[in-house]
Amino acid sequence: MSERLPLERFHCVIPAGGIGSRLWPLSRAAAPKFLHDLTGSGQTLLRETWNRLRPLAEPSNITIVTGKPHQDAVRRQLPDLLVQNLILEETPRDSTAAIALAAAILVRRDADVIIGSFAADHVISDQKAFEKVVCEAVEVAATGKIVTIGIQPTEPSIGFGYIQAGAALAAAETARQVESFVEKPNLETAKAYLSSGNYLWNAGMFIAPAQLLLDVLAETEPALLAQVHELAEAWHTDNQDAVVAEVWPKLKKVAIDYSVAEPAAAKGLVAVVPATFEWHDVGDFAAIAALQSKGREGHLAVLGDAQVLSDQSSGILVGESSRLIALIGMQDVIVVDTPDALLITTKEHAQRVKKIVETLQANGHRDVL
Amino acid sequence: MSERLPLERFHCVIPAGGIGSRLWPLSRAAAPKFLHDLTGSGQTLLRETWNRLRPLAEPSNITIVTGKPHQDAVRRQLPDLLVQNLILEETPRDSTAAIALAAAILVRRDADVIIGSFAADHVISDQKAFEKVVCEAVEVAATGKIVTIGIQPTEPSIGFGYIQAGAALAAAETARQVESFVEKPNLETAKAYLSSGNYLWNAGMFIAPAQLLLDVLAETEPALLAQVHELAEAWHTDNQDAVVAEVWPKLKKVAIDYSVAEPAAAKGLVAVVPATFEWHDVGDFAAIAALQSKGREGHLAVLGDAQVLSDQSSGILVGESSRLIALIGMQDVIVVDTPDALLITTKEHAQRVKKIVETLQANGHRDVL
Repeated sequence: MSERLPLERFHCVIPAGGIGSRLWPLSRAAAPKFLHDLTGSGQTLLRETWNRLRPLAEPSNITIVTGKPHQDAVRRQLPDLLVQNLILEETPRDSTAAIALAAAILVRRDADVIIGSFAADHVISDQKAFEKVVCEAVEVAATGKIVTIGIQPTEPSIGFGYIQAGAALAAAETARQVESFVEKPNLETAKAYLSSGNYLWNAGMFIAPAQLLLDVLAETEPALLAQVHELAEAWHTDNQDAVVAEVWPKLKKVAIDYSVAEPAAAKGLVAVVPATFEWHDVGDFAAIAALQSKGREGHLAVLGDAQVLSDQSSGILVGESSRLIALIGMQDVIVVDTPDALLITTKEHAQRVKKIVETLQANGHRDVL
Repeated sequence: MSERLPLERFHCVIPAGGIGSRLWPLSRAAAPKFLHDLTGSGQTLLRETWNRLRPLAEPSNITIVTGKPHQDAVRRQLPDLLVQNLILEETPRDSTAAIALAAAILVRRDADVIIGSFAADHVISDQKAFEKVVCEAVEVAATGKIVTIGIQPTEPSIGFGYIQAGAALAAAETARQVESFVEKPNLETAKAYLSSGNYLWNAGMFIAPAQLLLDVLAETEPALLAQVHELAEAWHTDNQDAVVAEVWPKLKKVAIDYSVAEPAAAKGLVAVVPATFEWHDVGDFAAIAALQSKGREGHLAVLGDAQVLSDQSSGILVGESSRLIALIGMQDVIVVDTPDALLITTKEHAQRVKKIVETLQANGHRDVL
């Protein structure tokens, strides 16, 4: 065991990936969700994530994992990022490769490092509550646990995976043992989860000693782990390009839920700290509209520079240009106006945006994706 | 009485004015309704009007009255227009000045001229029926009448003025005496009109000896008529600019309905030929959508170059650019996408577009009007 305080060992990892196809045409391959201001704060979600973590970690202890196409945008957003803390993925190989590579690189610098993984595109507004929950999670992680942060459900959502919480951990403030991770349920099951009080939303945040993650992978994905170590060994050396060219294309694509979270939970290695803060994954435009309207009925939220003339209209309007947009009698509408593509739908159909993107992909419309 | 056949005396006048504010942002001051293709024919409404009249009149017998700002666009649309047949209005002074000036200019070239006035922005598809009705109207006009063309109502519309038809004219095929002109009625009155069978929609088309129109004006608007004659006398001479500068600003603004049609009807000078063709004034986007869908339910009409991806959507989409527009679950929607302004509404609210234009005017947004 390290003699340092747990928080002194803490290093944040922000995987900044995923296109967010339900947010098309705003979010797209060249300008994914985390590079947009979806809250009207004036900051991108990535920068907000960075700002949220800064009270918990110095820039030297925050690493970004992102795709090569986004490196310039990420550097512009985070001028205080250290060069050595930007890990560029040659191509997307899913979450296990991304997190394991960060863990393998960081453990070489600090064998006792505790890494915390936080998505680049979530919205959390209660900073104090966030810090308190993460601090407890780091404390529990230091006892040799993989610690997730579970969101208290406010409705029987079928859009999230759930964490089944078990007994309270001895000596912990609020942390509980994790019995299992369960995938997105149907509505009936989601209602049962909500009323039981023992199921929390899995927001994909976790904190754990890097070595513990690598130890779990040694059992579940030994070949992948060996490749990751080969990459980490060469990282930031003259060999990096050669090894990446050789190894990267072979990396298995597997979600960290399957390679680490679920197997570790089965072994009793996972804990959960229930979050006391509001959390939004702003996965579609209906979610953004809800976030913006803060429950006000009949509200039209406007993001971007559009000049809007609204006559009895509500919903959300995202305008990337400054042109005039007139809405008459449109209720719960979603309008996303970009230079080369315009989306018009309603909150009710927000989830079907993904289908449009799939159609565009199938039809070879890559220019607007 | 002239010894020529009535049709040999016929000269068409096309007043091309009016912005069509219920068709904003497609139709606007710089690009009024008559300069757009609203039927998907590939032709502007102005050109379609010209083409419709050509079997009845040679280019030497078709005159356009339009505003100075539109002269270049009109010339591009009508390369076969004669220079002497383009009458440019210095500023808009309503329909009496426009028609009377044309009549005064034309009567100087041909004292027996019968002029027919046809709006530049209406849609009539049955060419043969149109020609037959106009020919009868010209015949009746030659007997010393002002002849309107009345549209058989298909519904109790409150959007049009009506023509009250009286007794059949002796020796005419279908023409009837006009008892009176009545303004846009309320719904109850419109229903009564429809069931009576004696009321026809006033489509604003009329045919009359030019001298007869001027004679009526001599009684109802003598001052205006004197100014119009002063202008006509100077027209196409070296004096034109000086007289226009002096006289034009003084011209009284009055609709020809009040200065000519109603007083002449009271004197028994007006006849009506009932139209047997379909007629559309395409005054708003709902009318265009109805025209395009031809009664098909759930149809999405597309005008312009937009690439459209429609998922369970209906209505009308007008796209001036070639960018991609995706619609999901939008019923009876109206989308008009122009470079500097975007309108989104539904057929139900099509009439309220005018209100948006008024708001923009009040707020000094002349750049998009």
